[in-house]
Amino acid sequence: MTDKSKEAAGGDSRRPEIFHVAARLFHEKGFAQTSMSDISAALGLTKAGLYHHILSKEQLLLAIFNYGLDLLEREVVQPVAEISDPEEKLRRLIQKHIQLILQKRFHEITVILHENRTLHGKSLDQINQRKKKYIRFLENILADIARKNPRGKIQPKLGAFALLGMINWLYQWYNPRGPVSQDELTEQFTELFLRGYGTGGAASPSSPRAAR
Amino acid sequence: MTDKSKEAAGGDSRRPEIFHVAARLFHEKGFAQTSMSDISAALGLTKAGLYHHILSKEQLLLAIFNYGLDLLEREVVQPVAEISDPEEKLRRLIQKHIQLILQKRFHEITVILHENRTLHGKSLDQINQRKKKYIRFLENILADIARKNPRGKIQPKLGAFALLGMINWLYQWYNPRGPVSQDELTEQFTELFLRGYGTGGAASPSSPRAAR
Repeated sequence: MTDKSKEAAGGDSRRPEIFHVAARLFHEKGFAQTSMSDISAALGLTKAGLYHHILSKEQLLLAIFNYGLDLLEREVVQPVAEISDPEEKLRRLIQKHIQLILQKRFHEITVILHENRTLHGKSLDQINQRKKKYIRFLENILADIARKNPRGKIQPKLGAFALLGMINWLYQWYNPRGPVSQDELTEQFTELFLRGYGTGGAASPSSPRAAR
Repeated sequence: MTDKSKEAAGGDSRRPEIFHVAARLFHEKGFAQTSMSDISAALGLTKAGLYHHILSKEQLLLAIFNYGLDLLEREVVQPVAEISDPEEKLRRLIQKHIQLILQKRFHEITVILHENRTLHGKSLDQINQRKKKYIRFLENILADIARKNPRGKIQPKLGAFALLGMINWLYQWYNPRGPVSQDELTEQFTELFLRGYGTGGAASPSSPRAAR
């Protein structure tokens, strides 16, 4: 198997480790100041060994973004898509998205995902399309809730971005070892957003705590 | 007047322009890759001319952060602090903070303010203290509202960070030339947050549209 076909098939068990380590270095030192030698050294690989797994620094960055969005797809979108009730979908999405964001290893990936200034052209378009797809997924859930519930006055699109702001901002301030547990955070954010959006906000049978 | 005393006194009318241009370059190229020559060229100054205004690149970055936080203090905190009713304070804070964030020239300052990885030691502490002061200001308003209104179940601290997430995230997606006007955005975010926090969310006499 050549490097390229291996990369395409994703059949390379070291790739997640490479992505996490490289994301941490890109985050700490900046993309331009991080060399392939820095990354291979941090992984305990020779530079040739690293090139066995990936083709270039630019391709590595794109692969990290896609890896982060793959996780979002697998750990948030897929489980939520299986639920039929829109309000329940929203509750689960908030819970799952917070869970993903607060995974320790995901921190650097979150940060660089939102600083995608180093991507250009087709790579940037591809990542932006994937981000937009997630926003539309959330927006559609909110539109379904609005149809069922005439109390709401918030436009689904603005609601979607407000919620994503609340969740994505967590990496700026939330300390998992601080006084607020992840369950408490999830319950409060769910309550705040659902009530604000006009869907009541009373706890449902599968509220975050019960769903664990 | 020496350069240092000029800097300390802030009596230098070119400083805001220097800050905005440098913030844009730091944002576009990254701090490490931006040289003092790049900044002086973008300003139409010689390098010596730039050093007449500022002492070093690190000091320039710190000065930009303090400039951004000065604007937050002057354009958000001061007008809001003069209001006595807590709910009215909150409405005005949301309006004024959104207004500041959406100022075209403020964009790059917002971005680099939230990527303050290039500050270290005392400079980083100073900026973080100023940010915390703003968060406490908002948190105190939310605690005052909670005391008046037993319907709310959201902890003031979590409410404060949720709101800052909604507002600070705007730079990631909001297009002032898009279909949602700034007034509409402000009204919807105010409604969403106030209702979610448990303060009703009905329009007040000085809602954003009326306050203009």
